[in-house]
Amino acid sequence: MFTFSTIPVDRSSRTPLTDQVCAGIASAIHTSSISPSQRLPSVRQLAVWLGLSNFTVAAAYERLVSQGVVVSRAGSGYYAASMSRHLQLDEPMPPPPQPDSAVNFVQNVVDPRQHALAPSTGSVPTEWMEDALPASAVGRLLRGASFSQSAPAQGLVELRKQLSVTLGTNGIMAPPAQIITTSGATHAIQLIVQHLLKPGDTVLVEDPSNMVQHAQLRDRGARLLSVPRLHDGPNLEVIDRLASEHKPRLMITQSVLHNPTGNNTSSSNCFRLLQLAEKHDFLIVEDDIFGDLHNGNAVRLAALDGLHRVLYVNSYSKLLSPAVRVGYIACAAELVAPLVERKILNALSGSALLESLVLSVLDSGRYMSHILHLRRRIGAAQSAAHAALSSAGLDAGPTLNDGLYLWASVPRHVSVDRLLAEASGQGILLTRGSMFSPTGAFERHFRFNVGHCTAPRLLDLLRGFCRPTGDTAS
Amino acid sequence: MFTFSTIPVDRSSRTPLTDQVCAGIASAIHTSSISPSQRLPSVRQLAVWLGLSNFTVAAAYERLVSQGVVVSRAGSGYYAASMSRHLQLDEPMPPPPQPDSAVNFVQNVVDPRQHALAPSTGSVPTEWMEDALPASAVGRLLRGASFSQSAPAQGLVELRKQLSVTLGTNGIMAPPAQIITTSGATHAIQLIVQHLLKPGDTVLVEDPSNMVQHAQLRDRGARLLSVPRLHDGPNLEVIDRLASEHKPRLMITQSVLHNPTGNNTSSSNCFRLLQLAEKHDFLIVEDDIFGDLHNGNAVRLAALDGLHRVLYVNSYSKLLSPAVRVGYIACAAELVAPLVERKILNALSGSALLESLVLSVLDSGRYMSHILHLRRRIGAAQSAAHAALSSAGLDAGPTLNDGLYLWASVPRHVSVDRLLAEASGQGILLTRGSMFSPTGAFERHFRFNVGHCTAPRLLDLLRGFCRPTGDTAS
Repeated sequence: MFTFSTIPVDRSSRTPLTDQVCAGIASAIHTSSISPSQRLPSVRQLAVWLGLSNFTVAAAYERLVSQGVVVSRAGSGYYAASMSRHLQLDEPMPPPPQPDSAVNFVQNVVDPRQHALAPSTGSVPTEWMEDALPASAVGRLLRGASFSQSAPAQGLVELRKQLSVTLGTNGIMAPPAQIITTSGATHAIQLIVQHLLKPGDTVLVEDPSNMVQHAQLRDRGARLLSVPRLHDGPNLEVIDRLASEHKPRLMITQSVLHNPTGNNTSSSNCFRLLQLAEKHDFLIVEDDIFGDLHNGNAVRLAALDGLHRVLYVNSYSKLLSPAVRVGYIACAAELVAPLVERKILNALSGSALLESLVLSVLDSGRYMSHILHLRRRIGAAQSAAHAALSSAGLDAGPTLNDGLYLWASVPRHVSVDRLLAEASGQGILLTRGSMFSPTGAFERHFRFNVGHCTAPRLLDLLRGFCRPTGDTAS
Repeated sequence: MFTFSTIPVDRSSRTPLTDQVCAGIASAIHTSSISPSQRLPSVRQLAVWLGLSNFTVAAAYERLVSQGVVVSRAGSGYYAASMSRHLQLDEPMPPPPQPDSAVNFVQNVVDPRQHALAPSTGSVPTEWMEDALPASAVGRLLRGASFSQSAPAQGLVELRKQLSVTLGTNGIMAPPAQIITTSGATHAIQLIVQHLLKPGDTVLVEDPSNMVQHAQLRDRGARLLSVPRLHDGPNLEVIDRLASEHKPRLMITQSVLHNPTGNNTSSSNCFRLLQLAEKHDFLIVEDDIFGDLHNGNAVRLAALDGLHRVLYVNSYSKLLSPAVRVGYIACAAELVAPLVERKILNALSGSALLESLVLSVLDSGRYMSHILHLRRRIGAAQSAAHAALSSAGLDAGPTLNDGLYLWASVPRHVSVDRLLAEASGQGILLTRGSMFSPTGAFERHFRFNVGHCTAPRLLDLLRGFCRPTGDTAS
């Protein structure tokens, strides 16, 4: 039981007496020395106890009321506010916003409240991920690890050694000292963009490409130079011309299973792109987060270049587990210290627990066996999706790819706005292709996730809109 | 075995023939179709096979040599470069840099290669953390969780509900919708600083205070306004004056167990500080990462303020496990959306695995029982450290605190430079107090971690330097 007469009042202090009384009561309420909803003494009573004027105490009470700390009940006096009045634990969370920007799209994708259907999501379907890292395996995989210490700012040494070996199998020579762990690929891009770009710098990006990267670049104040993505990689003539005109600092690209088109950069395109980077003196960020899904021997820019001009980015958040945020950068030795500094200023260091877990998953062979399963599932789904979307009337392109995405367009007569409104009304997360375009092109395209696009209600919806105009479309 | 005659050469392409040959060979080497160190055909031989001139092939080989992809051995021909030449897996990692800046200090603190002794480290001693989260408990704590989905961008809903209840016990009313999870407190500060500050903005910081926060603010281009930290909180007169002059956007402070002084802001100082924030219209970031160590009913600014002007930051990385990077921000409703947007652009979302783990640790009572242990250990260590440092000749202040730090100074006659050089030579991580000062003051102070400062070799070193000058100091 709180004794009100013990509220400290110091007449020699420069702090006004009203302030002192306010502080004493507020503090007692917030530390629960005065219980929520407890009745407070009357103004007169407290004034007597503290040897203060009624005016001083009343002023203190009124100020506390205006702050919500005390409640005044007409004719009955003053009460400590009730805590539960403020806490609304069971109030439903607001739904994610409409997916009308990169950031809002991400909020939809990562929200566990499932859409009825999410054909445009960037995530591997949940049921294809369940074998990768079941909770029952996590304890076993972490056995012997200790969680009483941080990871070094650059990343766990043993993980970086393992990553160095993994990279070697793709022809990328990266000693552990040239690898920096991150909280996923988006984090890696952010550290690179923050370090390498100043506001006003120009950056080459492919059209279409990853919308979150566009948002990161714009947020940094960079100007985006749009390079058409062709079937075998970025349009090199356009790069040559844009680079001559604008002297870009950087290009961001994805050589293997490009997002959203699903195609690969050919070796000769890779080679010439590196020559252009040399000629125009720009660096290249190569995002390889889907590379492990590719069944062949695709060439990475980082392999050809030997990490001179290429900063290679990869992650285990996409294909191993979206609940595990671990990615990395492999780059030239002289970029390591400034990027580690960026990482420290950003979040001190990575999680030694997650980094140990990824190390153990790689080391045990669990990752590779999950990837082999995933390739088979995605391969089958890619064929099925291609057939289904084509038969629903979309142009899904002439070839299949090994990846998670299929980039397809609806016929000219379709009202994309109406299609999107209808999808949204049915709880279907479908996203306009122009969101992947730095120029707002690809208005008739959609990125389909092959794991989510053979559902009859999606295909019915698409067929309804895509059927030839001779028919009576609603 | 790679068949060189299959290297694709297209005379109708606009790609120069030399480039095509380079790409074909480089690609075969990097995909290991040509083995490391394998001898390549002679220039003449390959020219015949591909139907090209010797000149074209020789030019291609030479370019590949200059890129390190191919090696030329005098009199013997061309070879694929050896992979192992580049990979230096067992080369020892370079030691962390001298702790002469905030970033370099962090690199020392988070490096697992122990210093002989780290009396200035910010981390709780490893052996005091081992009960908190043993690997054997992690599997159990995660039972039933699924790692095939992301956490929502704002953080797991169930964790935010738990945090809301936890905050309520400290008098802070924060509904789950006003909580955003982060990768620790440094990450929280970074998101806030990125959102609220523009380059050139002024920020009130205490002198002394957390050096990493100073580095983050400077990195953002903010100007630091230094406010002396007194025994009961920041100097309010100075804040009033600086705020009138410079119109700061923000103040960063720590009300409970302030780093590095270990003292607490009194309730009346809290109250008046909030009045000054109101008067001068600045926001306050309250960093409470040590609050759980405090044995009493300290008042938080966020409790008095009701999250109107205060952004409250806390973390489980300091006291639960440095291997688990989970912190959070509790703030006004209108700041939630822009801070979540910052978080998405920064790293997409947090780790659902780590967030589930923290939820389970809180929910099971394991966290509270660890904290109670930790308080007892730190309490005992604080007394012992105070006595030991005082008897070694330092001024450790008149009072003990509940926290991890003790802020003590050496006598005027001591050469701090020589003391630091000697400590460094002995592998002792000791850091100049001025690193915690935005003005470079506190040259004679050191932040001691009470878990690391009763070691005889540290005390011998300090005693040697601090003994009265009448003695024969070395």
